[in-house]
Amino acid sequence: MTTLLPFASDYMEGTYPAILEKLTAMNFTAQSGYGTDKISTSAKDKIRQACHCPDGEIYFLNGGTQTNAIVIDALLHRYEGVLAATTGHVSIHEAGAIEYTGHKVIQLPQTQGKLLASTVRQFMETFRADANNEHMVQPGMVYISHPTEYGTLYTKQELLALAETCRQYDLPLYVDGARLAYALAAPENDITLADLAASCTVFYIGGTKCGALIGEAVVIPQKGRIPHFFTTIKQHGALLAKGWLLGTQFDVLFSDGLYERIGRPAIESANVIRQALKAAGYTFYIPTVTNQIFVIMDNQKIEALSHTVAFSRWEPYDADHTIIRLATSWATTKKDTDSLIACLQPHDL
Amino acid sequence: MTTLLPFASDYMEGTYPAILEKLTAMNFTAQSGYGTDKISTSAKDKIRQACHCPDGEIYFLNGGTQTNAIVIDALLHRYEGVLAATTGHVSIHEAGAIEYTGHKVIQLPQTQGKLLASTVRQFMETFRADANNEHMVQPGMVYISHPTEYGTLYTKQELLALAETCRQYDLPLYVDGARLAYALAAPENDITLADLAASCTVFYIGGTKCGALIGEAVVIPQKGRIPHFFTTIKQHGALLAKGWLLGTQFDVLFSDGLYERIGRPAIESANVIRQALKAAGYTFYIPTVTNQIFVIMDNQKIEALSHTVAFSRWEPYDADHTIIRLATSWATTKKDTDSLIACLQPHDL
Amino acid sequence: MTTLLPFASDYMEGTYPAILEKLTAMNFTAQSGYGTDKISTSAKDKIRQACHCPDGEIYFLNGGTQTNAIVIDALLHRYEGVLAATTGHVSIHEAGAIEYTGHKVIQLPQTQGKLLASTVRQFMETFRADANNEHMVQPGMVYISHPTEYGTLYTKQELLALAETCRQYDLPLYVDGARLAYALAAPENDITLADLAASCTVFYIGGTKCGALIGEAVVIPQKGRIPHFFTTIKQHGALLAKGWLLGTQFDVLFSDGLYERIGRPAIESANVIRQALKAAGYTFYIPTVTNQIFVIMDNQKIEALSHTVAFSRWEPYDADHTIIRLATSWATTKKDTDSLIACLQPHDL
Amino acid sequence: MTTLLPFASDYMEGTYPAILEKLTAMNFTAQSGYGTDKISTSAKDKIRQACHCPDGEIYFLNGGTQTNAIVIDALLHRYEGVLAATTGHVSIHEAGAIEYTGHKVIQLPQTQGKLLASTVRQFMETFRADANNEHMVQPGMVYISHPTEYGTLYTKQELLALAETCRQYDLPLYVDGARLAYALAAPENDITLADLAASCTVFYIGGTKCGALIGEAVVIPQKGRIPHFFTTIKQHGALLAKGWLLGTQFDVLFSDGLYERIGRPAIESANVIRQALKAAGYTFYIPTVTNQIFVIMDNQKIEALSHTVAFSRWEPYDADHTIIRLATSWATTKKDTDSLIACLQPHDL
Repeated sequence: MTTLLPFASDYMEGTYPAILEKLTAMNFTAQSGYGTDKISTSAKDKIRQACHCPDGEIYFLNGGTQTNAIVIDALLHRYEGVLAATTGHVSIHEAGAIEYTGHKVIQLPQTQGKLLASTVRQFMETFRADANNEHMVQPGMVYISHPTEYGTLYTKQELLALAETCRQYDLPLYVDGARLAYALAAPENDITLADLAASCTVFYIGGTKCGALIGEAVVIPQKGRIPHFFTTIKQHGALLAKGWLLGTQFDVLFSDGLYERIGRPAIESANVIRQALKAAGYTFYIPTVTNQIFVIMDNQKIEALSHTVAFSRWEPYDADHTIIRLATSWATTKKDTDSLIACLQPHDL
Repeated sequence: MTTLLPFASDYMEGTYPAILEKLTAMNFTAQSGYGTDKISTSAKDKIRQACHCPDGEIYFLNGGTQTNAIVIDALLHRYEGVLAATTGHVSIHEAGAIEYTGHKVIQLPQTQGKLLASTVRQFMETFRADANNEHMVQPGMVYISHPTEYGTLYTKQELLALAETCRQYDLPLYVDGARLAYALAAPENDITLADLAASCTVFYIGGTKCGALIGEAVVIPQKGRIPHFFTTIKQHGALLAKGWLLGTQFDVLFSDGLYERIGRPAIESANVIRQALKAAGYTFYIPTVTNQIFVIMDNQKIEALSHTVAFSRWEPYDADHTIIRLATSWATTKKDTDSLIACLQPHDL
Repeated sequence: MTTLLPFASDYMEGTYPAILEKLTAMNFTAQSGYGTDKISTSAKDKIRQACHCPDGEIYFLNGGTQTNAIVIDALLHRYEGVLAATTGHVSIHEAGAIEYTGHKVIQLPQTQGKLLASTVRQFMETFRADANNEHMVQPGMVYISHPTEYGTLYTKQELLALAETCRQYDLPLYVDGARLAYALAAPENDITLADLAASCTVFYIGGTKCGALIGEAVVIPQKGRIPHFFTTIKQHGALLAKGWLLGTQFDVLFSDGLYERIGRPAIESANVIRQALKAAGYTFYIPTVTNQIFVIMDNQKIEALSHTVAFSRWEPYDADHTIIRLATSWATTKKDTDSLIACLQPHDL
Repeated sequence: MTTLLPFASDYMEGTYPAILEKLTAMNFTAQSGYGTDKISTSAKDKIRQACHCPDGEIYFLNGGTQTNAIVIDALLHRYEGVLAATTGHVSIHEAGAIEYTGHKVIQLPQTQGKLLASTVRQFMETFRADANNEHMVQPGMVYISHPTEYGTLYTKQELLALAETCRQYDLPLYVDGARLAYALAAPENDITLADLAASCTVFYIGGTKCGALIGEAVVIPQKGRIPHFFTTIKQHGALLAKGWLLGTQFDVLFSDGLYERIGRPAIESANVIRQALKAAGYTFYIPTVTNQIFVIMDNQKIEALSHTVAFSRWEPYDADHTIIRLATSWATTKKDTDSLIACLQPHDL
């Protein structure tokens, strides 16, 4: 595997060198436990500043599915479910982690991987008009991700419209930012961290896929919005004794605006690859501007490619073609990008 | 906090230097995700070898509470609960993580922090004799930890007796080894990794508190004993995309017998501290031979000590005294040990 | 409400007179608790005989949603979900009772309200071919109802094909028989109680909607298939102290073949209504042969009808029409049927 | 069994005759579903009046364990547990129904089967003083029953003190009234329905053991205190399609003050039995004034008694004695009482 060109995902490499250096420098400095240390406090301050939410609460967790399950369980009442796009990560690829907490994922139609305000509105109106709705799971919040599961981006206008709709129907809005750095690094993106803090009830800033060794930062802009979140994290088995391990990483990521530029190499590489694919006549399954590229490819070509490139088989397209995903990362090099392009010969799809 | 002498816990420092070196060396080597990488495979092989269970299954998780909740939930049927000592970590200090999975922790009396075979036997006989026992939570497994929550050790004879009792009553036996390295490093300990593999249905080898940066290794000696454990881990939000992060650490910890000797500095330091405490006339709450020391201390002395030493207030002893815990670690230095001893002046308890 | 013609559901009336007589006769006869009484034993024997499963286990529960949640939770492993038609009762109208137990309802396309063997097969093949399926909820069983949520019937051939497919993929098959008496009373039905016992892992015989005052009878044809089901029922809060209350009713329902003929008045009435609707030019939403009739009706007509008839508004059909449901029951009289028909004037849909 | 004298429990007989008559009279009167019928509305009005809580919400459920699990789950946040006496019904005899909903039962010492204000206060003070309490299950409410599991009664003063303590610590107070009619009928009782409504966050009025065929009435004195309780009931599988079945029974029970006097025959019989036991030299395990009597009896005597009397073996007392329970009910006759007394020969304990 290690000799294949690494385009299977954005979590194949370790961490941004400055993070490793910081961890090494403080390796024998004793820290207090469970996130009560000074570096975690510093990291939280920096995140609050970057998000323009001086009163916000910040918590560090370990991974995306864990974060989604805990935040959703914490935001919902027991009789409520979460609205999500049919293609949302929580709908399919989290092994039922949401249902395990007792909550239904209410799947709504997606538009380019996105859940639009109009879709939520239509669902809510139908639900409210249903005389039997007390026999149904109550819609309790909205889940989206930015970028989406398909690498697409919400526009600021779409986000604001969704947030407004959520407010009207009293639905908390939660944004999964597992790959948020790749949105922030894309020129087409017009949503800032401050916009997220102003629009969402909760969102999380992805670390694992965005240059951290491990970790995600949950932002709750309104202080006190989720009581006893610390205990809830512990109850879900997600509280690290060494909380400073996560705090340290985010302290580096949020120093000197690193997080907002760390995804740039991924975007630059992805753009070059997209151009090459287009030039070679490939068809995209869905147009993207972030670090994920979904291409429809001939099964024979895929077989050949698999000997030199690590990539993901997404889903069958038709009898002879499959949708594959190429993902670049903060660590993608120009050399690997060029090598990949060389492998993507023109073809006759 | 950083200027206090670090005896509050065994998770205050980072990681064994060789681990950090290995992580640094492979930082830009691309790995496949979710533990399918080669280093994780290598680590698992080494653990199987150390435990003398060639067919065992190994899984890496992030922390102790998480591991306990997942393993217990996976071993129990829905109508079953777990037997544990009243002082067991799962009984009190995990924020209800076990109950959150739907299972009752059935608390049994402890003996020096240990759950003895005779206690389990007596409970099971009473339960079976109760004509109404179908209206009660069915006892479904036994949880112990080695060392215990109070730093004491099971003897091999006690472990074998408990395992035999569990077999008789068809109760899976699970051993929480959060601090296992400190048992293995204690001269009084006569339980090996191979003994655990031979006696337990499942046990875990602690990393977080034993020199790893983060992580625990679950050992299921009998292959196939827990079907779909991978999916169960994902469902609990505990599957790391970067599985190799955990695998790498355990690969180092299980090279050249490191794990079995990594706790020695902690034990040596603890022994020196115990001698000093005894010489100074302190009373131990419970006699221990591992890296945790529970001392009954005058509240005024505690207040004074807190200006120079980081330690844990365990529980009130009486109106004027409190039980405090001093914990050494793999990283404890002779210098800090000596400084601590200097702070522990003779007193008149 | 009481003056409206009662076609809103099949649970508007009390119970078959012989049941009330029996309850009255034994009102002061002391019974032992929790279903250990003699009448419950007698009822279970009669059900086993009617189902041709002499070794089967029978349990009495209180209602349909409760029964579905308990049986599904008992049949599934924690990492599994239940396959059901998108229109299945468990998918929509049970307020998330299945998800509350931690399991996802995996919704599959329906055909006339039915889940066909070919649909299950196609899902299973796709699932098995998916390289990431360990990250997904594992398909653990199949849920259907007979009659379906839309009043349609499986043919014996369809049932056998589904059972065979379930065997191939090692999926337990569970049949919800909330309205089973109305299937058994329909001339078009060719599935017997014995067929269900031979094909299903578990099924339930509906009482509440089929002439009992309250209660459902769960049949587990293979003895021991679900260990500790009694305790599971208690754990779900579904164990009645007065188990004999349910046993008594089923003892009457399964004396002299009552259950197999109790639905006949409902079917006869429904057939007359269907003929009248057809003659009057109404369009059926879906063709049915049991006690439920789904008609597309003009909203103005619906408003008018609501002053004389109790019926259910099912769902909007288009801007001007709604699907309504008329349900007959074991207690429906010829007089009410004739009155209803008089209200259903010819119209110009 | 039916020929034994019926003192095993208070749920051996059917229902108060007037209830059966009412059910018979309305058997063919069509009712609307899920408790939306007029009789349920009438019953709720009568209960509100009897409890002096004109704005209270009333819901009808099927049994005690179900009611406890649903109310406790509805009152608690996910990170909270319920405080209960070690002898509380929820602690032991509900098969883990509370833990199944994800909540820990935090067991506190009992005093004559009661949980006293001082015990709650002491627990709360210790909990609040514990620096690690965020790592523990948060105490979220208090559960008691009146009468208690051991047939004892709270005094009004004890109830008010407990309610006051709960208010101070912001803990909802829930009273399980499974056998409430037997408290209300006891001359020693000084707690009225109105007192319960004024003191509790929620309480339930037992039907199943107090003369109803089946059913319990949940009273939430403060309207809106538990949002979406209807959906929560459905989600737990506890919503009966035939809600009127429960409503009708409580309509009878709360007509003409029936509920407050229905337990009198039980109390009168129990008093006679207690006198006879005392005269015969038996020792009570615990002194009671309601319909349950706990006697320490010689095992040989118990064996002999079991041929003529149905009673409950509660728990072993010592090698030669067992605690048995004799329970009278609303249906206990003078004849059976006299026959029982004849069986309780003087003995030489």
